[in-house]
Amino acid sequence: MSNKFVYVFGPSRTDGAADMKNVLGGKGANLAEMCRLGISVPPGLTISAEVCTIYTEQGADAVRKQIEADVLQGVKFIENEMGKKFGDAADPLLVSVRSGSRASMPGMMDTILNLGLNEEAVKGLAAKSGNKRFAWDSYRRFIQMYGDVVMGLKPESKEDHDPFEVIIDEIKEKKGVELDTQLSVDDLKHMVAEFKALIRTRLGREFPNDPWEQLWGSIMAVFESWNNDRAKLYRKMHDIPDSWGTAVNVQSMVFGNLGDSSGTGVAFTRDAASGEDIFNGEFLVNAQGEDVVAGIRTPQQITLEGSRRWAELAQVSEEDRRTKFPSMEELMPEIYQQLLKTETALENHYKDMQDIEFTIQEGKLWMLQTRSAKRTGAALVRTSMEMLAQGMIDEKTALLRVSPDRLNELLHPVFDRAALKSARAIANGLPASPGASTGQTVFFADEAEEWVAKGKDVILVRQETSPEDLRGMAVAKGILTARGGMTSHAAVVARGMGKCCVSGAGAIRVDPRARTMTVDGKVFNEGDWISLDGSTGQVYEGKVSTMDPDMSGDFGKLMDLAERYKTLAVRANADTPTDARVARNFGAVGIGLCRTEHMFFEGDRIKAVREMILAKDEAGRRHALAKLLPMQRGDFEGIFKAMDGLPVTIRLLDPPLHEFLPHDEANQREMAAEMGVAYEEIKHRVDDLHEANPMMGHRGCRLGITYPEITEMQSRAIIEAALNVKAQGVSPKVEIMVPLVGGEREFISQAKVIRATAEAVFAERNATIEFMVGTMIETPRGALMADTIGAQAEFFSFGTNDLTQMTLGFSRDDIGKFLPHYLQAGIYEQDPFQSIDQQGVGQLVKAAVEKGRSARPKIKLGVCGEHGGDPASIDFFHRVGLDYVSCSPFRAPIARLAAAQAAIQNAK
Amino acid sequence: MSNKFVYVFGPSRTDGAADMKNVLGGKGANLAEMCRLGISVPPGLTISAEVCTIYTEQGADAVRKQIEADVLQGVKFIENEMGKKFGDAADPLLVSVRSGSRASMPGMMDTILNLGLNEEAVKGLAAKSGNKRFAWDSYRRFIQMYGDVVMGLKPESKEDHDPFEVIIDEIKEKKGVELDTQLSVDDLKHMVAEFKALIRTRLGREFPNDPWEQLWGSIMAVFESWNNDRAKLYRKMHDIPDSWGTAVNVQSMVFGNLGDSSGTGVAFTRDAASGEDIFNGEFLVNAQGEDVVAGIRTPQQITLEGSRRWAELAQVSEEDRRTKFPSMEELMPEIYQQLLKTETALENHYKDMQDIEFTIQEGKLWMLQTRSAKRTGAALVRTSMEMLAQGMIDEKTALLRVSPDRLNELLHPVFDRAALKSARAIANGLPASPGASTGQTVFFADEAEEWVAKGKDVILVRQETSPEDLRGMAVAKGILTARGGMTSHAAVVARGMGKCCVSGAGAIRVDPRARTMTVDGKVFNEGDWISLDGSTGQVYEGKVSTMDPDMSGDFGKLMDLAERYKTLAVRANADTPTDARVARNFGAVGIGLCRTEHMFFEGDRIKAVREMILAKDEAGRRHALAKLLPMQRGDFEGIFKAMDGLPVTIRLLDPPLHEFLPHDEANQREMAAEMGVAYEEIKHRVDDLHEANPMMGHRGCRLGITYPEITEMQSRAIIEAALNVKAQGVSPKVEIMVPLVGGEREFISQAKVIRATAEAVFAERNATIEFMVGTMIETPRGALMADTIGAQAEFFSFGTNDLTQMTLGFSRDDIGKFLPHYLQAGIYEQDPFQSIDQQGVGQLVKAAVEKGRSARPKIKLGVCGEHGGDPASIDFFHRVGLDYVSCSPFRAPIARLAAAQAAIQNAK
Repeated sequence: MSNKFVYVFGPSRTDGAADMKNVLGGKGANLAEMCRLGISVPPGLTISAEVCTIYTEQGADAVRKQIEADVLQGVKFIENEMGKKFGDAADPLLVSVRSGSRASMPGMMDTILNLGLNEEAVKGLAAKSGNKRFAWDSYRRFIQMYGDVVMGLKPESKEDHDPFEVIIDEIKEKKGVELDTQLSVDDLKHMVAEFKALIRTRLGREFPNDPWEQLWGSIMAVFESWNNDRAKLYRKMHDIPDSWGTAVNVQSMVFGNLGDSSGTGVAFTRDAASGEDIFNGEFLVNAQGEDVVAGIRTPQQITLEGSRRWAELAQVSEEDRRTKFPSMEELMPEIYQQLLKTETALENHYKDMQDIEFTIQEGKLWMLQTRSAKRTGAALVRTSMEMLAQGMIDEKTALLRVSPDRLNELLHPVFDRAALKSARAIANGLPASPGASTGQTVFFADEAEEWVAKGKDVILVRQETSPEDLRGMAVAKGILTARGGMTSHAAVVARGMGKCCVSGAGAIRVDPRARTMTVDGKVFNEGDWISLDGSTGQVYEGKVSTMDPDMSGDFGKLMDLAERYKTLAVRANADTPTDARVARNFGAVGIGLCRTEHMFFEGDRIKAVREMILAKDEAGRRHALAKLLPMQRGDFEGIFKAMDGLPVTIRLLDPPLHEFLPHDEANQREMAAEMGVAYEEIKHRVDDLHEANPMMGHRGCRLGITYPEITEMQSRAIIEAALNVKAQGVSPKVEIMVPLVGGEREFISQAKVIRATAEAVFAERNATIEFMVGTMIETPRGALMADTIGAQAEFFSFGTNDLTQMTLGFSRDDIGKFLPHYLQAGIYEQDPFQSIDQQGVGQLVKAAVEKGRSARPKIKLGVCGEHGGDPASIDFFHRVGLDYVSCSPFRAPIARLAAAQAAIQNAK
Repeated sequence: MSNKFVYVFGPSRTDGAADMKNVLGGKGANLAEMCRLGISVPPGLTISAEVCTIYTEQGADAVRKQIEADVLQGVKFIENEMGKKFGDAADPLLVSVRSGSRASMPGMMDTILNLGLNEEAVKGLAAKSGNKRFAWDSYRRFIQMYGDVVMGLKPESKEDHDPFEVIIDEIKEKKGVELDTQLSVDDLKHMVAEFKALIRTRLGREFPNDPWEQLWGSIMAVFESWNNDRAKLYRKMHDIPDSWGTAVNVQSMVFGNLGDSSGTGVAFTRDAASGEDIFNGEFLVNAQGEDVVAGIRTPQQITLEGSRRWAELAQVSEEDRRTKFPSMEELMPEIYQQLLKTETALENHYKDMQDIEFTIQEGKLWMLQTRSAKRTGAALVRTSMEMLAQGMIDEKTALLRVSPDRLNELLHPVFDRAALKSARAIANGLPASPGASTGQTVFFADEAEEWVAKGKDVILVRQETSPEDLRGMAVAKGILTARGGMTSHAAVVARGMGKCCVSGAGAIRVDPRARTMTVDGKVFNEGDWISLDGSTGQVYEGKVSTMDPDMSGDFGKLMDLAERYKTLAVRANADTPTDARVARNFGAVGIGLCRTEHMFFEGDRIKAVREMILAKDEAGRRHALAKLLPMQRGDFEGIFKAMDGLPVTIRLLDPPLHEFLPHDEANQREMAAEMGVAYEEIKHRVDDLHEANPMMGHRGCRLGITYPEITEMQSRAIIEAALNVKAQGVSPKVEIMVPLVGGEREFISQAKVIRATAEAVFAERNATIEFMVGTMIETPRGALMADTIGAQAEFFSFGTNDLTQMTLGFSRDDIGKFLPHYLQAGIYEQDPFQSIDQQGVGQLVKAAVEKGRSARPKIKLGVCGEHGGDPASIDFFHRVGLDYVSCSPFRAPIARLAAAQAAIQNAK
């Protein structure tokens, strides 16, 4: 801990700099940096974040003792810089007090403005500004703010109104006016008196008249706010150490509301929506920052070009524009030139697009803030690529600047912004699969198919989806479920399909019998239009128009760049030739997971599958499997062709057999009629297959071990398909994957069937291909036994979804009941199904990598769980040394960028 | 590998000894040892087990080349010893050929007797024995045995009869006789010719006439049988290496059927049922071993005392006994004295109770076999304790000799042996919970209660049981389920109750609506009598009378001895004061697991529990919990009193809430009526609580974290109960256990509630007690994070049931569909829920022990899963260094003995 606790900034002296965020917080450091750049910033002082720790550990008295002299000197510095005096009855120095920590952190103290006003100073302010109304209005605002934030005068219960607002309303009512601005100076004086009386009555103490008392109160309130519940929760959730503390900024006030040569505004050094390299922003003449935010007046554009664009969009004539809404470039050309020079300097200095705030006080420009600008995903990509081209940043910086998840915005349709403004949100669910969609509600998968066949756009609405809904999901524009988490069936399947999905929208009650969904008492019938935003989880009433994604050339450049830095290969999970082509288009260099069971649901296949399940003996099963063989072979041929030359990992049948049977009587009777067997037989078989915990039941390789004929059929379909396409000049790279292996004996048993089948096919065809046999590592035991398994298996693919379920004991279909609570309470920081639990599950992955390599140094290692598309998880997989990640095709670009970032960051 | 392959044994020379089992197999080593002791054994030779490996690797020719000379010399040795010659037409040497490996191993070759007989030798045998019939019958038996076992003449399909038996039947039919003994010498000669013709026709080769060819054929057949499927499977299942191989014993034949001075018998050096130190056995005059086995003639007793006891039981008069069934002691006093001397010598030599076989050929006693005798659990305990007292063995040997599982027989009722003989077994299930019971079938738990209330004995028969059946299970004599494994709900609860249970009897179809169970087409109605043997899994039709266990003083002595050697403490799992008392009586030194949820099902409690579940907010839940508080407190007081001075680990609520609600409409409607709410409300809540995989759902500490008021109520009940009993002079040792913890944050959150509640109660009462707060380690993540959890928790108790479920991904309710197949295929060697999976789950336990101790060196470590009562698992827990195991009260003695054995074996 250093001994310097107070840092001043101003034209004549600046103690801090941009690289001192740990001491000064982000805001303080940037203010200091601007001063150092010679930019005009209202002078001020920053109390170091280290003092916050003193406050927490030793209390307010200790703080004051340690920093009082420095703060005094600092204020003196500000007074000198501004030529004003704190509490002066002639020309008082007024200051703002703000918190500012190392990490951007909502949840702490609001800003206190106009501090320093009292019974004397208000008169000085009135005299100096020549504006009594301004002075008294400033005073009453200060009292109100300070009373609330520092003195803690809050509504007595959450049903109550703000007591200060109650007084304002009473006075306005008495005077018969509607707007604050209609109140007279006397009204405001009266208001000040009432406010003070309120404080006296409610708190039993006087509102402080002494500016120093006001200042110390505010400083301590900032420190105190570091430890309020909201702030603590935020830190827990974002892993911000309590020890960081917050700095306090005390800065001279400047006023944009002192007439027509004053004003205030915000600007961006580039376009925040498109990323275009064009300076832009808005300002208001004779206004304060809060007026811009309040949105009562229409702000004017800063540049002439921007103003003309705005007028075109807003359908304002050039005449009107020039007279009523002139740009700053026209109205205040000198200030405009200063601002232009400043924004250029700031962007060049920070080497990133800046979001700046400024105030013009009586013809003088003051910069109040600069920071990296928030922007759309598209803008993020474009600014990064253009700054790289402009030589402002290097390749690594360009790659690291784009948060991979932001690419989502570029890869899916989005709602038209204008249309969204008038849309009514009716519910909020989980952003399960990104994109925007609009359609008519239907409540059954088969009806979705019927409607779509008639040319309609539908949203499939279900309590939760099951594999039986797959075909309906495939044709719907979007999927909405009332239950289920980010990794529920609906969510996982939708992401795989690249289809918009909102899951777990708990406010919605679905009544499939009545074909209605009810939200907040409002009933939506079949055919009613709704719209889903799968990127935010919002559900809207009615139609909202969407826009197709614009994949500009910058996106391609970014991907090319990523390719040069990443070491992890990125594959995709795809179950059909169409998916495979999408994956390849998105840059995937292989299929990491092809789920064969999804092929079983279509058309006649489900019949044959059911026939197999109902068969009484092996002969009966073989009979049914023989019907499936040509269909599976055809699927594989399509996938091998789509992935010509690239590896395709095919997982053998995984889900429990009951997933292929209907569970309700109506469908069971239908199936019985279709198959010509007694309903009771179907029911009996379904009951027989029922499992208490299907996730840990008769599935995975357990199926292939009890029914080797299934493995045999699938292996034959794969090998025959590979030989067929090879004969057509295609180069298939086959990897056969045994699921849910927990020890080497299970693997050996299945590998034997696979290899024997391949040998048989080779002999029949008198032709061979190369292929690999490997396994999923998805049970904790599989990970623990990875050495003995690795001695047998040619590759591992970590199935981190199931591995997470079993390691944590979290059924992902059931976590909705407790995980939200866990996240809120900070027991887990992230949904472990979205981002891998590095502490727990990660130990198993790491151990299995080491064990697998110890047994087989060249073993191929990948991951095919949902985590394969999550940037933080990808960083982890890079660090433990996997060869590839596999994710849904639409996340492949995200994974590629994340892989590049992982390579860069871990090389440091 | 040594160069000596053939070892002879006989009066004049013996190469082997008892400690050469690895080379000679068990049988060969013991035969050699008897020769060394000067006991009269028919001379023979043993071909070393090493030769089996040569056979497997290089084939029959290589074997013959390597050992031909030695075998020739060995046969010469036998000829010299016996004064007979192989294939001699005057007095031929006949031999038996038997396999014999290091470990007792069924599945290999059957014995070949009378080898050496051919067209000439049969005449010699007839002449020498003066008994043509004997000679030709021996010859036809030899051909039949050799033709089947060595030449492989089997029925053509499994539906066909044995072709040799077909010939016998044809001849008998032609002659119009029923018994083999009614056939003439010519009939037998004809039969020999027919047998040889059969072999010639079916196999296309002659039956060998050359004794040497017969001998080599038999030797190779023994080696070949080492690799038959049955033998390989057996080895796989019992972890016997293929490399051990089998030895071959070629031994001179002796005949007990050469007149009234011949005979054959078996004897035990002590009583195999009671263990009493009394020589006993049976013999038949003029008979061969197979006649004893066939059970056509009533055997006579060896000792006079035994004969008198037998006569009393069989209600045979002393006159009849003496004339028709005299003892050997009376009939052949000299031979008897020789036998007595021999059995004493053998027991003293082997220092264990022996099971011996002998033949008397024309007044000469020959010993054919000696081995450790199989005996009942009671006999095992008694013989061990008496041999210790007699100074024959030391304490460690006495302890190690009793297989802990055998104590089961002493701790539960058993069927009356006599009654069992006439009982008809109708089905076979898993021996889920030991003991024997008989009662009338009922199909519903509440009806079980009603019937029992009327004074009836019932067996509760269910498809599978659920927590709703608990009260019915508690009153039933036994429980039978059609589904579920050794660790199904029924099995676990029944073992906890010490109640007889047969689970997973798949042949039974239960129809609760019709109140019937059907087995093999036979329908059993409600009220029909059945009997269950929970130690074997057998289900019998009708009543079978049972006997209470006899816990003799030797049992107590064994337990005292175990206590002196073991280092692991043994606790018991007990949920009620009654269970706790039983546990203490069985020597448990604490409660390792008290499941609080079992207390929730009784009487009014379930109502309050349901009220809590239906409550709409925390206030409603608190209202319902307040009703439960005094009941829980009362339970805990009872348990603390029963365990005065001993630790009691109480686990907080664990199961998902839906387990407390009825799942069928009828019961839901009843509940609705009882609680005065709408049926739909109940149904909706049940649907709401439904989980796809309840094992990994909203349970364990996840309940306490979402509803801290439950933890608060339970903590209060525990602490108040402890203070109450302390005021009465009882010393409660309280350990509060948080279930299903996966990381330190879950534990901290619950420990905070527990400790705060305790502090509040202490303040109210102005009194305190000591207590510990710890956790179950039962998720893989909990084990992986044991260092950070251990920094917080004062003890760990490994919940190895759930840890096994999650590590393996085996839902124990669902493993019935694949685990039997896995065990049969050798993928797992044991049911991992019965004996801990040391390779997989064991890694996690070991790591967690190390991590826990690294964080808190004195952390108390125990296990409370089903494995706590399994000897092999106890050995593992001893090795990884746990402080205690906890098991069901009835297994506490087994655990205590197993713990002692673990201490002895691992000190070696």
